[in-house]
Amino acid sequence: MLGLMQQQKLLISDMIEFAEKHHGDTDIVSRRVEGDIHRSNWATIAARSRQLANALDSWQIPVGDRVATLAWNGYRHLELYFGVSGSGRVLHTLNPRLHPEQVVWIVNHAEDSVLCFDMTFLPIVQKILQDCPTVKHWVAMCDADKLPTDSGVPGLVSYEAWMSQQSTGYAWPELDENAASCMCYTSGTTGNPKAAVYSHRSTLLHAYACALPDVMCLSARDSVLPVVPMFHVNAWGIPYSAAMVGCKLVFPGPALDGKSVYELLEAEKVTLAAGVPTVWQMLLGHIKAGGLRFNFLKRTVIGGSACPPAMIQAFNDDYGVEVLHAWGMTELSPLGTLCTLKNKHLELPPDEQMKIRLKQGRAIFGIDFKIVDELGVEQPNDGKAYGDLLVKGPWVIREYFKQEGPSPLVGGWFPTGDVATVDPEGFMQITDRSKDVIKSGGEWISSIDVENIAMAHPDVAMAACIGMAHPKWDERPVVVVVKKTGSALTAAELLKFYEGKIAKWQVPDDVLFVDSIPLGATGKMLKTRLREQLADYCLPS
Amino acid sequence: MLGLMQQQKLLISDMIEFAEKHHGDTDIVSRRVEGDIHRSNWATIAARSRQLANALDSWQIPVGDRVATLAWNGYRHLELYFGVSGSGRVLHTLNPRLHPEQVVWIVNHAEDSVLCFDMTFLPIVQKILQDCPTVKHWVAMCDADKLPTDSGVPGLVSYEAWMSQQSTGYAWPELDENAASCMCYTSGTTGNPKAAVYSHRSTLLHAYACALPDVMCLSARDSVLPVVPMFHVNAWGIPYSAAMVGCKLVFPGPALDGKSVYELLEAEKVTLAAGVPTVWQMLLGHIKAGGLRFNFLKRTVIGGSACPPAMIQAFNDDYGVEVLHAWGMTELSPLGTLCTLKNKHLELPPDEQMKIRLKQGRAIFGIDFKIVDELGVEQPNDGKAYGDLLVKGPWVIREYFKQEGPSPLVGGWFPTGDVATVDPEGFMQITDRSKDVIKSGGEWISSIDVENIAMAHPDVAMAACIGMAHPKWDERPVVVVVKKTGSALTAAELLKFYEGKIAKWQVPDDVLFVDSIPLGATGKMLKTRLREQLADYCLPS
Repeated sequence: MLGLMQQQKLLISDMIEFAEKHHGDTDIVSRRVEGDIHRSNWATIAARSRQLANALDSWQIPVGDRVATLAWNGYRHLELYFGVSGSGRVLHTLNPRLHPEQVVWIVNHAEDSVLCFDMTFLPIVQKILQDCPTVKHWVAMCDADKLPTDSGVPGLVSYEAWMSQQSTGYAWPELDENAASCMCYTSGTTGNPKAAVYSHRSTLLHAYACALPDVMCLSARDSVLPVVPMFHVNAWGIPYSAAMVGCKLVFPGPALDGKSVYELLEAEKVTLAAGVPTVWQMLLGHIKAGGLRFNFLKRTVIGGSACPPAMIQAFNDDYGVEVLHAWGMTELSPLGTLCTLKNKHLELPPDEQMKIRLKQGRAIFGIDFKIVDELGVEQPNDGKAYGDLLVKGPWVIREYFKQEGPSPLVGGWFPTGDVATVDPEGFMQITDRSKDVIKSGGEWISSIDVENIAMAHPDVAMAACIGMAHPKWDERPVVVVVKKTGSALTAAELLKFYEGKIAKWQVPDDVLFVDSIPLGATGKMLKTRLREQLADYCLPS
Repeated sequence: MLGLMQQQKLLISDMIEFAEKHHGDTDIVSRRVEGDIHRSNWATIAARSRQLANALDSWQIPVGDRVATLAWNGYRHLELYFGVSGSGRVLHTLNPRLHPEQVVWIVNHAEDSVLCFDMTFLPIVQKILQDCPTVKHWVAMCDADKLPTDSGVPGLVSYEAWMSQQSTGYAWPELDENAASCMCYTSGTTGNPKAAVYSHRSTLLHAYACALPDVMCLSARDSVLPVVPMFHVNAWGIPYSAAMVGCKLVFPGPALDGKSVYELLEAEKVTLAAGVPTVWQMLLGHIKAGGLRFNFLKRTVIGGSACPPAMIQAFNDDYGVEVLHAWGMTELSPLGTLCTLKNKHLELPPDEQMKIRLKQGRAIFGIDFKIVDELGVEQPNDGKAYGDLLVKGPWVIREYFKQEGPSPLVGGWFPTGDVATVDPEGFMQITDRSKDVIKSGGEWISSIDVENIAMAHPDVAMAACIGMAHPKWDERPVVVVVKKTGSALTAAELLKFYEGKIAKWQVPDDVLFVDSIPLGATGKMLKTRLREQLADYCLPS
């Protein structure tokens, strides 16, 4: 016996239509590449998305073709989100922080037929265009009069000249809700990058979940600033959830320094911001130096990598901003867990609450997870047992784009490559990446734990812990440290700092001071590169 | 090109599994028919839902068969919600306030094969059992030792004896997400009742939407008391959303008087309550009489019929409780709109905010609506033009159960039978039922407007406005009034009270004082009955 409900498909075009109809005059504010502030609203974004769809039709771009972007967070990128996917093409957000060779590899693998770029990235386009034969159209995301005559890009058109003359009338097609809507390549620290291909259905379900009170808690009363890039897993899904709830959006463009972000937060009365720890570090630095405070910001979502405890404390204690610690992956659209307290935790003393907030959080309905040992046996949720973290759900990938060979799933579950514990309340905590965990004498040492202690030392700017081969213990931890400017910290002092904070056998065998630690395109430390750099290193005997 | 995401179905069983795993020890508190307070939690509810599924299997109840309930809000009813639907049967919540003849008609129409009832409703069961040949099993929702030996119900078993011996192990089936999960008959003030048949998919999408910050804003930090009955459109979907977010649930059982509800709100630290205006009237009366206040309650969802302005004001101004005015229908699962302010409204003065709060609210993403005139032409969203309200969305019915004849949809839209305005911000306001609106001299008079003014008079307990045939104007309004005890209010005084509050031609032609106004099973005024009672009435000339 079937239900007798309307068979309405879950489509991205419904989100922008809803935002236009019910929240048409709500602001969309963007700092542009040129530095000025641009104001739009949901009604205008919707109308221009339809113009964009007509513009793609005028070039006869087939449904399913990939339309790539190399762009900052801004209104034109938002229009591409809805115009490309809504009309049945697949939005492919390229990461401009990758090496041009990697961009070439990815564009060819995705077989992009259109590539739209912010003028900042013209140098990348100039480097790659000869090697991207599938790209038939290059679009500079600028006004017609800003298009350089000597760009060196054949047939280059400006976004505005291309789309703004089109009709704002367009009937969004009734697509299959499982049709591809967008794709994103993993940062790929090892091997070739791999792409997650999202569907309209997965994107819309993720958007519902992302907006829930225990997740980002997005409402029409919010002004939201995604610092997390729109080229990085769809800015954690915020553009979609924002359309779904009709909140105001504030885009920082290329200016991610503390001063610029702070100015926007205040001027646009931002209530929620979202980004990776490195950006927040710059923001907190700016605020502290200037003796400033947040007048509107209430919550900040921090993810991408584990948030240092000191940062959560600074936001909470010094500035009254609630930190929502999140965990996700490209393969999860990206949200998997978010750390919000339960009813029973509300009366705990602040330090007990802080212990919970340090964890990556609880599963969002839709996502299920479990931890398993090396034999695949599920481990208890006791907050102590750790295991490889596996997930499943309607916004988790089942396979990668064009990936030959066996499915990445293990019995229907996606192995995240993270090692985690889960406490009896369901709060998950990442203890390490599977490949970074240090196996010493049959026990596992979390590289993240070792790094967090070093980071808590006032003289340490950045720390990476890696395992070094050891004849007796298999591996032993060493910590690689960038000191703060002017610090005279010694290895012995830092090792002494570990006393009482960690079991003795988990204390690193050595401290190596360096000028910098290699970072990947999304700001994560590249431990593989670090291991290569330290290939000739010998542990102290 | 299809997306490459996991094809996980949207099933009700996933909700209870999630609640068990991630919120297992969160309280489910019920006041029982016996009067005592019963404490359970999500883990126990989940385990007993599985026992219930095994118990249904043991009786070989086929997938798709209807399992009916005649029950108050309580933990056993909650177990039936998940055990029946999760195992593939269709939960059919019967309204015990209907006349037994109507219950018989509905049970036969639904072809229920099992009927579970609270002991309160044994007299109904005794009256109907001879006329319900499809019902093979009657289950009394009580302990084994509470089962009366002389019930007169052949083969009657107690719920506990039936299910509590079953295994708690059960693998929920992988159903079609469009399979029927539950059904609910409309109150049917005219003609035979008609049933909406919900699916797993529609129920789950509705649950996501219901929990959103701009809707009920449900989180794991909430303690929620649904006064709205679980036999009335699934208690507005709260049981499902509650499992999805892992909040605490508090069930009032049969005790809906002000004192009992207030005691539960305080004892269980309830943060959100939901119900129809009549129940809140009793609660406010109790609080006012005792000089009490709410120590925990933050928000209350009021729907089912238009909320009197005085009630919104009392909750807001006197007790600091935010009223969330909601609108929905059985055919909408039931939520269509909910009234929460937008960012731009937060700085309005309180009386301007109140004007907005009186409206039924904005569309929830998933629901789309429009207003049309008698020719089906869409009317402007200017807050003035009114029209028949049409809706569509994935949790709106496309047809009624076993309904012959043409589809109720008009060009894909469901006509709600309500007349409404929509303002430029998207806030919808019901001005009347299509069949209640009074057509006087080519203009429409809202019966609700006329009633609200009467209700604002301190001597009026209840008021109903109906149109009476008039030789010149087609129809003219009269207002039927129940005075408060001891009041000496006269018709002339009440008519004078209308002066300046409404256009002169909209003032009723007469006031009729009566002892009571007929109410339907869900507490709504039965204007059809009232019209019958006044069949011999003549307007004053």
